[in-house]
Amino acid sequence: MKVTVLTGGVGGAKLVLGLLRVLPADAVTAIVNTGDDFRHIGLHVSPDIDTLLYTLSGKSNLAQGWGRADESWNFLESLRDLGGPDWFQLGDRDVALHVLRTARLAGGEGLDQITADIARRFGIGATILPMSNDRVATRLDTDEGDLDFQHYFVARRCAPKVTRIGFDGAETARPAPGVIAAITDADAVLVAPSNPFLSVDPLLAVPGIRAALVATAAPVVAVSPIIGGKAVKGPTAKLMEELGIRLANASIAAHYGDCIDGLIIHDGDDAPEGLAIARTDTLMHDDADKARVAQVALDLAARIAGR
Amino acid sequence: MKVTVLTGGVGGAKLVLGLLRVLPADAVTAIVNTGDDFRHIGLHVSPDIDTLLYTLSGKSNLAQGWGRADESWNFLESLRDLGGPDWFQLGDRDVALHVLRTARLAGGEGLDQITADIARRFGIGATILPMSNDRVATRLDTDEGDLDFQHYFVARRCAPKVTRIGFDGAETARPAPGVIAAITDADAVLVAPSNPFLSVDPLLAVPGIRAALVATAAPVVAVSPIIGGKAVKGPTAKLMEELGIRLANASIAAHYGDCIDGLIIHDGDDAPEGLAIARTDTLMHDDADKARVAQVALDLAARIAGR
Repeated sequence: MKVTVLTGGVGGAKLVLGLLRVLPADAVTAIVNTGDDFRHIGLHVSPDIDTLLYTLSGKSNLAQGWGRADESWNFLESLRDLGGPDWFQLGDRDVALHVLRTARLAGGEGLDQITADIARRFGIGATILPMSNDRVATRLDTDEGDLDFQHYFVARRCAPKVTRIGFDGAETARPAPGVIAAITDADAVLVAPSNPFLSVDPLLAVPGIRAALVATAAPVVAVSPIIGGKAVKGPTAKLMEELGIRLANASIAAHYGDCIDGLIIHDGDDAPEGLAIARTDTLMHDDADKARVAQVALDLAARIAGR
Repeated sequence: MKVTVLTGGVGGAKLVLGLLRVLPADAVTAIVNTGDDFRHIGLHVSPDIDTLLYTLSGKSNLAQGWGRADESWNFLESLRDLGGPDWFQLGDRDVALHVLRTARLAGGEGLDQITADIARRFGIGATILPMSNDRVATRLDTDEGDLDFQHYFVARRCAPKVTRIGFDGAETARPAPGVIAAITDADAVLVAPSNPFLSVDPLLAVPGIRAALVATAAPVVAVSPIIGGKAVKGPTAKLMEELGIRLANASIAAHYGDCIDGLIIHDGDDAPEGLAIARTDTLMHDDADKARVAQVALDLAARIAGR
C-alpha cells in the first residue's frame, strides 16, 4: 500500500501525521508546495517543506502553528539592531536550516536531495518531495499591487484584496525527480486540506502533475478545507470571496475537476454531486482526529478503487 | 589631531580602545585586515572587522576573546544536527551580522559601506575601514598542505608547521576608499601589536598601502607584539620560529623596515637600533593599560614629528 499526498503546510502536515498513524512510514510520500519559497536576506526559505520537516519530526511549535519548538530569537533581535528586516520571523534554530540549504543549493544540490537528507537526519521515515527543484513563485495581483506570497501572507497578513493568483516560472518548471512516479505508482493519492488556490494550485501548475493526477490508476481523494461551511484558518474564505467563488464543497470539487475522484467533507456540509463522497469530522485537533481523517480518506480511496 | 591605526583583531582592538580613551572618537581611524575573511556555509565572515565592531561597541565577549557577549548557540547546535560544519563557532547573534553582510554584499554594496553602517548602528564614533573591498585571502603553505587562514587558525589551532604565507588576490586588490587618505592625512599612524606576519602583512600586501606608509609625512609607530621576549598569545612565536625569524624586537623592526619610524617596546625587551624607541608595559589588561600604551605611542609619534 503506497499513498501519496499533495500538500501545502500546516493542514497538510496534519493529514500526513494522521497517515503515519495508520500506515508504515515508508508507505507515505508527501509532494510539497514550493510556491511559497522565497529568498530572504539571501537565504532560501521553503516554508511548507519546513513545516513538514518540523511537524513529522516532532520539532514543530504546535501552539504557534509555525516554526520550531524550543526556539530562541537572538538572531532576529540582532538582525533588527543591524537594521535588517524583521517582518519574517526567523528563529535561531530555524535559520540554521535556511543557511545550510542555501549553501547546499549554491553548491549545486537539488532541493529534493537536500530535503531528503534533512528528513533522514530528522528521523523521518516518510518521503518528502518538493513539487519541483525549479523556482516557482506564487504571486498575487492585489489592490496593493503585485505581491509575492510571503509579503501578502506574512508582511500584509492577507489584508490586500486579491484579484488574481499566478505562479511565476511554473510554465518551465519540471516536477522534481520521483514526483510523477509517486502519483502514477501510488495505490491512493490524497490532496490535503490545504488552501486549494494558494497551496495546491502551485502543484497543479507544474507541467505534468495535473496530467499525472488525471491519468493515474490510483483513486485521488481530496480532503476539503471547508468545515462547517467555513474555512478553518488562513485566508481561504476571504480569498474565495474576493475571487468570486462560493465558499462550498461544490466549489472545491469544481475547482479540482477531473483531478480528483472523491472528496472528504465535514459532517453537515454541502455534498457536491458527480464524485464519491465520505463524511467525517475533518477538524484535526489531536492525533486521533488526524488518524481518523486519514483513515476515512483511505477508505474512500479503497471504495473508489473497488477494493 | 588625526590618528590612523593598522590593525588585525583582538590586540589591535585593544589599542584602538586605548586611543578612544585619550582622543575624541572622530579623530581615530582603524584600517582593518580582511585577509582572514572567508566564506563559511555561504556566509561572508570578516573576523577582524567583527572584533573591532564588537569590541568598540562594548559587545565583545572579553573572557572568551572572540565573538559577542550575551551570545546563545542554538544556531550552531541545529547546524550540527543537520550535518553542517561546526568547527567554526557561530553564535546566534553573531550569525545575524554575517547573514546581513552577505546579503548586502550580494546586493552590490561595498564592505566599507556595510562596515560603516554597522559601526554607526552600534554607536561607534571611530572610523572602521576594511583594508580593501576586494578579496584578499591569507593562505599558508604548511606541512599539512595549503591551508586558508581559518582552517589553519581555528580548525587546526595553528598546529601545522608553516613554511610560507601568501595573500591570494592581493596583487590586484585596491585599498578601500579612504584607506590611503587616512594614512596620508593622519597626524600619526600606528601599527597595532597584531601578528606582523598574519594580521599586518595582508594590509601591506595591498598595493598602495606600503607606499603610503613610506611616503606619509606622519610619523609611523608600531607597537611590538613581543612582551618579555615572548609573544603574548596566538601563533606569533611558533610562526616566527618556523619561518626562521628570531623572536626579538630587532626582527619586528627589520620586518617593517622603512614602513615605520618608531617602535613601542615592552620594558626590558631588546631595543633595535636605527629607529625611535619608547618603552612601557605593553601588556594591555585593563582600560588604563590600553590608554597608557596608546598615549606612549602618540607621544613617540609627536617626538618623531618634532612636536
